[in-house]
Amino acid sequence: MIEPDVELARTLFKELYAIGYDGIGVTRDTYGPGEQRAHDIIRRHGTGLGLESRIDAALNLYLTLPGQERGLPAVLAGSHLDSVPRGGNYDGAAGVIAGMSVLASWIRCGRQPKRDVTVICIRAEESVWFPVSYIGSKSALGLLPPDALEAVRFDTGKTLRGHMEDQGGLPEKVLNGTPAVSGDTVRAFIELHIEQGPVLIESRHAIGIVTGICGSLRYRSAAINGQYAHSGATPRTHRHDAVVAFAELVHGLQDKWRMMEAEGHELTLTFGQVNTDAKQSDFSKVAGYVLFCIDIRSRDGDTLELMDYYVRYAVADISARYAVNFSLGEKIRSQPAIMDPALRHRLTACAKNRGLKFHAMPSGAGHDAAMFANAGIPTAMIFIPNANGSHNPDEMMEMDDFSNGARVLSDILWEISNQ
Amino acid sequence: MIEPDVELARTLFKELYAIGYDGIGVTRDTYGPGEQRAHDIIRRHGTGLGLESRIDAALNLYLTLPGQERGLPAVLAGSHLDSVPRGGNYDGAAGVIAGMSVLASWIRCGRQPKRDVTVICIRAEESVWFPVSYIGSKSALGLLPPDALEAVRFDTGKTLRGHMEDQGGLPEKVLNGTPAVSGDTVRAFIELHIEQGPVLIESRHAIGIVTGICGSLRYRSAAINGQYAHSGATPRTHRHDAVVAFAELVHGLQDKWRMMEAEGHELTLTFGQVNTDAKQSDFSKVAGYVLFCIDIRSRDGDTLELMDYYVRYAVADISARYAVNFSLGEKIRSQPAIMDPALRHRLTACAKNRGLKFHAMPSGAGHDAAMFANAGIPTAMIFIPNANGSHNPDEMMEMDDFSNGARVLSDILWEISNQ
Repeated sequence: MIEPDVELARTLFKELYAIGYDGIGVTRDTYGPGEQRAHDIIRRHGTGLGLESRIDAALNLYLTLPGQERGLPAVLAGSHLDSVPRGGNYDGAAGVIAGMSVLASWIRCGRQPKRDVTVICIRAEESVWFPVSYIGSKSALGLLPPDALEAVRFDTGKTLRGHMEDQGGLPEKVLNGTPAVSGDTVRAFIELHIEQGPVLIESRHAIGIVTGICGSLRYRSAAINGQYAHSGATPRTHRHDAVVAFAELVHGLQDKWRMMEAEGHELTLTFGQVNTDAKQSDFSKVAGYVLFCIDIRSRDGDTLELMDYYVRYAVADISARYAVNFSLGEKIRSQPAIMDPALRHRLTACAKNRGLKFHAMPSGAGHDAAMFANAGIPTAMIFIPNANGSHNPDEMMEMDDFSNGARVLSDILWEISNQ
Repeated sequence: MIEPDVELARTLFKELYAIGYDGIGVTRDTYGPGEQRAHDIIRRHGTGLGLESRIDAALNLYLTLPGQERGLPAVLAGSHLDSVPRGGNYDGAAGVIAGMSVLASWIRCGRQPKRDVTVICIRAEESVWFPVSYIGSKSALGLLPPDALEAVRFDTGKTLRGHMEDQGGLPEKVLNGTPAVSGDTVRAFIELHIEQGPVLIESRHAIGIVTGICGSLRYRSAAINGQYAHSGATPRTHRHDAVVAFAELVHGLQDKWRMMEAEGHELTLTFGQVNTDAKQSDFSKVAGYVLFCIDIRSRDGDTLELMDYYVRYAVADISARYAVNFSLGEKIRSQPAIMDPALRHRLTACAKNRGLKFHAMPSGAGHDAAMFANAGIPTAMIFIPNANGSHNPDEMMEMDDFSNGARVLSDILWEISNQ
């Protein structure tokens, strides 16, 4: 059994940190200088190892170890290199770096697989920069909706089209060209990723083998319109208080969540942002307006629909009780994805073979792997334990845990790429 | 019975609207150009009527109709001329304009009272600009705390001291000079004001006679520190969700409010502002931070303390349940104030004499009158019905209702100023 090149991994994590550190956390902005610098680092090391390098129209990067039979569908491993603002160094990058450390060790030992094995560095996975999910993998798969190109990055005010072009991408080709990745050209996709939650750390498992990826149902710009009124002069029963209506919604749906869990549903429900109006609100006014968002996730589409029903029921009830108007805004869905059962079975065998305690678990977070799986490409995911969650500067993955994940990745890639 | 000069009132409201209209509502900024322009208009009309004009160190404006015995303590009527941002045209201004229309009618009819009667245009009543209440009346009464001069206006970033000086005021004299108003020099203060709530409109009373002014207990910058976490990857029981903690606080205290009202307490409880962090929050993150404010008001100090006890009890309970940290920040109190019983009795008689249906009621909103009353000056308030609340562009006072209030003001001023 070959050991992945962990020294290379250390170097790559260090270099990515150096170009991404923003004074608080790590920022590698989607289709901006941060993400580009990360791609440049990985490409430089990849070509240094002798890997073939190419990019697609959306600037996803492919670093390929040529196989003996180049006409066969390739095996892909990788993840994304962008981060949220002030995020951590491991979310996404660990999957790319694991692939690099695997191929480096194969090259060092003179291993050549039958099929091409490609490390893919996916663009734009984090949907915080543009209000579009999985831009990079959708582009690679030929699935990017045309209007996504007009989506505006929250901080620059510039469109995705503009950002893509600035970095040298070809937006029209993304929409109309031949997809870079398809079921005909790719045999399988394996994404290694930090867990982003506390489950593996707390249960002391060495790796997680993902069973499925949650879909989501989101209202990203919901609002409550009530009525501004003097806080001292407006009796309780005369109020149309948007903040109270919001609180009742959150309180009521927390109860529903608990109840659904007790009934066996797996889901999460999150109100990540809530804001009164900066100009019109005041500490001495009943709030007439609240802007907020709702994020519901589950591996089960029916569970998403049931919670959505409760949301709409609560909205109707609270609207009537407080005489306020809710506007939930656009409902955005992403489909749950099932990980390929055969690949899961192989991963289980690889983990056992390495003597690693593994845990089969769903992914509450969305991943590029969901796009690949739903496009008909056999897909699997390996989770690495990490403390302190993700999307924050305190992400904490241990290199020993990373090495375990990379070992399993190496073994399964070798197996599939020689079939 | 003399009729107040309603035509003058119409003219003054029109002129104030013209200089205050901001495209949406009316803005007359405290110690800024907006308030100054309003003072200039009233002073010009006052001197045009032959009233004596003077200002104090804090730039409160006094327009005096000299009495026959000038050594006697004067009678004051008036209110403030500043507004909240995008407020209405009547809050504050109605009290000043009522005084002007009364004195104009007296002058036209050749009436001269025994005592001086002064229309006072008070500065800086609205505490939204500077985080200090009743700057103008506190200054007039020699009660402004020295550190208030260092308070910073939210929009300009400049101190109160700087703003005062820019308009020609003398901050040091405000702190150390002889107070412009005291129990020795002032016999009584009558403030006419729009109600700011829906009570008179809904109960179809012509005027309100205020029994007392609510005190307040406020936490203007309270916060909850939880923990940011991935919304999909963090199970319910592992969350330290600041938004959920906030919602539980609001929900729990709404229940307490209902309960206290059922037990006979009169109070209001308002969460006028709530905001997640603009940079760190995200629709796909459990919220790690919420900033909010609490405003509690009551005529009864014990009621304020009881609700404050419930606030602190709920905070302790929720902190433990969700493992979040509350920081309530500075607790700011203003004392309730009782309106002078003898003046209330006279107002009742005046209203009856004019055939007006009146309603004795507390003021949930704070007013300069509370400062005067608590400084030992016999004080009373007349409320005018107005629709749509106050502190918003839709404030709606009918001129017929204003005329009724001005009539009662004229009668009581004549009575007291001839004692």
